[in-house]
Amino acid sequence: MGALIGLDWGTSSLRAFLFGADGAVQEQRHKPWGVMRLPLLPGEPAGGSAAAFERAFEDSCGDWLAAWPGVPVIACGMVGSAQGWREAPYAALPAGAQALSRQLTHVATVRGTTVHIVPGMIRRGPLPEVMRGEETQVIGVLEACALPSDDDVLIGLPGTHSKWVRVRERCLQDFDTFMTGEVFALLCAHSILGRTQQAGTAADDAAFRRGVSLALSADGQLGVLANIFSSRTLGLTGELAATAQADYLSGVLIGHELAALRRCRLDAGRSPTLVLVGTEDLCRRYAIALDAAGLEPPLLAQGVTECGLWRLACDAGLPGLSTPATANH
Amino acid sequence: MGALIGLDWGTSSLRAFLFGADGAVQEQRHKPWGVMRLPLLPGEPAGGSAAAFERAFEDSCGDWLAAWPGVPVIACGMVGSAQGWREAPYAALPAGAQALSRQLTHVATVRGTTVHIVPGMIRRGPLPEVMRGEETQVIGVLEACALPSDDDVLIGLPGTHSKWVRVRERCLQDFDTFMTGEVFALLCAHSILGRTQQAGTAADDAAFRRGVSLALSADGQLGVLANIFSSRTLGLTGELAATAQADYLSGVLIGHELAALRRCRLDAGRSPTLVLVGTEDLCRRYAIALDAAGLEPPLLAQGVTECGLWRLACDAGLPGLSTPATANH
Repeated sequence: MGALIGLDWGTSSLRAFLFGADGAVQEQRHKPWGVMRLPLLPGEPAGGSAAAFERAFEDSCGDWLAAWPGVPVIACGMVGSAQGWREAPYAALPAGAQALSRQLTHVATVRGTTVHIVPGMIRRGPLPEVMRGEETQVIGVLEACALPSDDDVLIGLPGTHSKWVRVRERCLQDFDTFMTGEVFALLCAHSILGRTQQAGTAADDAAFRRGVSLALSADGQLGVLANIFSSRTLGLTGELAATAQADYLSGVLIGHELAALRRCRLDAGRSPTLVLVGTEDLCRRYAIALDAAGLEPPLLAQGVTECGLWRLACDAGLPGLSTPATANH
Repeated sequence: MGALIGLDWGTSSLRAFLFGADGAVQEQRHKPWGVMRLPLLPGEPAGGSAAAFERAFEDSCGDWLAAWPGVPVIACGMVGSAQGWREAPYAALPAGAQALSRQLTHVATVRGTTVHIVPGMIRRGPLPEVMRGEETQVIGVLEACALPSDDDVLIGLPGTHSKWVRVRERCLQDFDTFMTGEVFALLCAHSILGRTQQAGTAADDAAFRRGVSLALSADGQLGVLANIFSSRTLGLTGELAATAQADYLSGVLIGHELAALRRCRLDAGRSPTLVLVGTEDLCRRYAIALDAAGLEPPLLAQGVTECGLWRLACDAGLPGLSTPATANH
């Protein structure tokens, strides 16, 4: 029996989950129809009309909706942005699952289904921060990892834009964004550093560690803008093979991210519980870098978006779901 | 009378100078024939054959060579790189004009002219540094600015790759490279930050200063990779106009460059003489940022490459030039 449809609808793709009454995922689908990549009809304007969102939703989940009439639907991610299906106002910090579940934005489809969109989160002030989708992953981490509720937790979500979220008493307290992944991709694809890089046959962890070490060393004080140039000069002086330069550069950038985190967000002598959420390769890299930075080994969490969607749907009391959910993730 | 031909031959362009016997530039030419952009004959391989360099040189200076037979020729820049006309081995630090002038590399042309190529400079070690062309600009600064010889001098050459060169006793002691200009261009052209930028009608110095201030503030401790994201989030929250975002981002990056320089290369309480060499707009930006960082106003130097080429040619004792030159630049 289908009890909930959950949508993880980001910029570049859409994942749809069908949950059973026990909160377990019974079926899932992955479509390339991100908010910026919706299939369009001839003459339809690009950039996501409501009709295009509705069509992508029907094409992904229409059979579920037909088989389980009245099944509730919850969605997170860029689908709630100004470029999304309906703009979902940001929730303010601090917030946990209950606060988020009280701030869902509704879209009614032609079929009569209501799609509930999870709010993103914002930190206002001189250095504003925003997220859309990661708040649901964090709620999922708290659900999936059974962390002691009084622990300070620091959750890293490495990716194109890495987020680091500080959690206390099961509430998101604050977070920071590092454009590490995007800068790495740009430097490899378009900068002078990419020109001397050659693809290796496997990840070069020694080169990666070397880059991390530079960032954490006294020479790291010269900053990212200077340190990245060494990926070229070490090549020119014969000290870094062309096949090692991309991994070295990745290490320099991730090392600087962790150095900044350690400098600004960690109290000396008091380490929070660290959790990583991301692809296997990225989590492996970040775990190596965390170790080099003298931090505790991180827990690795998987499948957290679906856990978070279930948790938020239950807390919101969507039709047919118990509140609070007792399903154990 | 032509006493010397000087070539400033970089990656993207070639500048040629004809000097009189007094060291004054009598004529100059600017060609788009950089080391990576040489005009090729049909079937000629890309990437700079000796024939292509020779042809570009003849096309630029052939009439000078014919008018002044035997006129000596000196060149600096990427023309001496592995991708250049002839690889000129790097000179080691520290070095001044006399040391550099003793390490010229020679290329003989078909016409029988000898082109003398100025060595680039290298710092070896775990964080190597290289330059080609800037060493000649620095020699030119020392020639053109008449700085007290016992001053510590810090010379900034902002650009795609900003160089900061420390000079003592008229010798280049050490230097650092920041990829500030290239990273700025990449972020504007290819990153998510560029997507919300709009061109303004004029440079927005207030936005630039705001970016510099962030980099120099406590929030700057979070580093470049985090701080640049604020160019987007300040836009999202309505606090930074689309037309101000590029100048703000420029400020964040240049601010981080100067923060690193201040942290690592300046002794507290003892300010070196600061000199800037670069385009008018860049020097203006850096002067604003230096002021925000509490540093002394910089001297601005112009026409330094030609001054440096003349000085090095004289110190090398090229035919017909007096050693040491007494011309006053």
